[in-house]
Amino acid sequence: MNIDKHAPIEWRFSRRAQKLESSAIREILKVTMRPEIISFAGGLPSPETFPVDHLRAAYDKVLTTQGKVALQYGPSDGYAPLREWVAASLSKEGARIVPEQVLMVSGSQQALDLLGKVLIDEGSKVLVETPSYLGALQAFSVYGPQFESLPTDDGGLLPESIAEIGQGARLLYALPNFQNPTGRTLSVERRHALVEACARLRVPLIEDDPYGALCYRGEPLPKLLGMNPEGVIHMGSFSKVLTPGIRLGYLVGPQPLIRKLEQAKQAADLHTAQITQMVVYEAVKDGFLDGHIPTIRKLYADQCQVMLSALEEFFPAGTRWTRPEGGMFIWVRLPEHIDSMKLLDEAVAELVAFVPGAPFYANDPQHNTLRLSFVTVPPEKIREGVAKLAKLIAAKL
Amino acid sequence: MNIDKHAPIEWRFSRRAQKLESSAIREILKVTMRPEIISFAGGLPSPETFPVDHLRAAYDKVLTTQGKVALQYGPSDGYAPLREWVAASLSKEGARIVPEQVLMVSGSQQALDLLGKVLIDEGSKVLVETPSYLGALQAFSVYGPQFESLPTDDGGLLPESIAEIGQGARLLYALPNFQNPTGRTLSVERRHALVEACARLRVPLIEDDPYGALCYRGEPLPKLLGMNPEGVIHMGSFSKVLTPGIRLGYLVGPQPLIRKLEQAKQAADLHTAQITQMVVYEAVKDGFLDGHIPTIRKLYADQCQVMLSALEEFFPAGTRWTRPEGGMFIWVRLPEHIDSMKLLDEAVAELVAFVPGAPFYANDPQHNTLRLSFVTVPPEKIREGVAKLAKLIAAKL
Repeated sequence: MNIDKHAPIEWRFSRRAQKLESSAIREILKVTMRPEIISFAGGLPSPETFPVDHLRAAYDKVLTTQGKVALQYGPSDGYAPLREWVAASLSKEGARIVPEQVLMVSGSQQALDLLGKVLIDEGSKVLVETPSYLGALQAFSVYGPQFESLPTDDGGLLPESIAEIGQGARLLYALPNFQNPTGRTLSVERRHALVEACARLRVPLIEDDPYGALCYRGEPLPKLLGMNPEGVIHMGSFSKVLTPGIRLGYLVGPQPLIRKLEQAKQAADLHTAQITQMVVYEAVKDGFLDGHIPTIRKLYADQCQVMLSALEEFFPAGTRWTRPEGGMFIWVRLPEHIDSMKLLDEAVAELVAFVPGAPFYANDPQHNTLRLSFVTVPPEKIREGVAKLAKLIAAKL
Repeated sequence: MNIDKHAPIEWRFSRRAQKLESSAIREILKVTMRPEIISFAGGLPSPETFPVDHLRAAYDKVLTTQGKVALQYGPSDGYAPLREWVAASLSKEGARIVPEQVLMVSGSQQALDLLGKVLIDEGSKVLVETPSYLGALQAFSVYGPQFESLPTDDGGLLPESIAEIGQGARLLYALPNFQNPTGRTLSVERRHALVEACARLRVPLIEDDPYGALCYRGEPLPKLLGMNPEGVIHMGSFSKVLTPGIRLGYLVGPQPLIRKLEQAKQAADLHTAQITQMVVYEAVKDGFLDGHIPTIRKLYADQCQVMLSALEEFFPAGTRWTRPEGGMFIWVRLPEHIDSMKLLDEAVAELVAFVPGAPFYANDPQHNTLRLSFVTVPPEKIREGVAKLAKLIAAKL
């Protein structure tokens, strides 16, 4: 061969790929996984909550009794008994959901990718909260949307803004329960107003609900899905109530959309692992989660309280933070002149980490914000970490 | 609420989603999964080859010794020891591959989706074999390419066609070993010519190799990857040598491309299930496949021979078929006036099924072709099914 075939190709990436960046969070996580660091950066559930023995028994049972089915290719829409279980679980809360409305996916991130693929064209208007979940912004960005950031206050999204901004939008993406990154929860009144505003404009409303079960005070609020099953797409996940390492979630919505998403799923990865779905069905079908979820709630609620108390005790005047009633995150607002990205460098030097808030904004990032997770750090370390952060912030005032 | 919120939304899908159709094969599979049907339609491996006990032991060991790691989120590029294993395995065959060149994916279909996402713009020229793998056409189609079908003969792709047709192409996609759907294998000479032609034009060459290990005669031929690691992207899978229901494959290529694909993977589903990767590593690390793959080869080689003999015995003059040296498929060419899609209706009425050939063509479908799989049907049923098909065809001559 008389050409220099080993000369590297100058890779010509698609326009959408040129927009892709590695998630700021995952890059930060790489740094902060060193064990000596007190990391409030993770969005990871606490491994203490993983029901390892229960799942091991489920794997054993499925492989012993139905091994060849579990290890074979399966249907693109998912394992039928698990789809029925999801439909039945959601139907208990008011909406009448049939299994044909359920699509099993390889974790909620895939749900976001499929929704973007099927609903977003280059330049499509996409409505998001201010701030919004970074993973959703990242997944949707690939498809070239024009994000419109909806105004929010301490109670979350302001539904009255939608009539004006929402005209012609291709979707509205919201996390009504214990939002990532702010920890905010939308009141029942705002939920109704949000659903009504979207229904009026015929804008599909995506309800991302990974944390709904992790409620530390009062009763869970009604899902958007039940308020308008024809216009709401509900995203659920086993990551926070069972385990994330298996990658399993689901999308629930009107059948014409679910059929189109199923085609996109087929092109994307054929189907979600059959064994995973059978094992999870085996693990949850007899009510296991009813006993398990309260133990997660207890652990996280206690740690949330420890962090809130530490913030109260140590953080200087001029800082503000949310007081979540569930979920995994507290959102902190620093005085305007403090850039949390720079603060992170100093914090890591002091062996504390968090996630800067800017990447969570689709437009106009607020650099004086940051996200703290309270779920993987033990109480005494929470206090130590918050005290260290407080000292760094105080030095800038 | 004074609007009719329950009025169904008229779903406005993205332009790319409008192009999506359900795979013809998977629709056919739904019909032909009835147990009374002799189905040559599947692309499924035989469940008899699944090492159920070995995998059950691996799940048990991983969950017993590293349960909390296996059930937690993991890195987007994959489980490091498995990436090292893949790199070491491929390095044995000549190319020097480092783990940083390996990206673990949720089955080969996801590799195709990620490659399309990262390399194809609307209107990009994409080179494929005539015919080509339907799942690849489907995955790439989402991104709006202009397919160019490369001419082939009984020896597969004709590399000399590339200099003329390939200018400016964004990728060439090929299955050199026991191609799906034709069962054809590319000779060593053509492999070198193909690699050289792509290197000259700086066209990335994708080598999809799910069947490479399923070689029934002679020695496996050298991989394209080893002939030019700077310009070839290799796709491998555990589906055909271990089990497909776990959804695990890998992409190997130059690091700048792999890093971009890793970003796309992160946006698409964060990462492939950690437990799956750890279990497969546990299952293969001590050489299990060296003993296991020959048992799969033996089973399939015998069934391939049974089908070839039955075709020889029963099929009428005027029909032609390939004689694969490995893999799972035989490709049949009927007299030109016979449409295999219509033949399928008649065949299903006689309780036999196959996949019509037309969907495997990116351009100018040849309706007188069809694909037969010999791997999941026992020998006596293979003879019975082939005899029935032969009778239906003979009636049209």
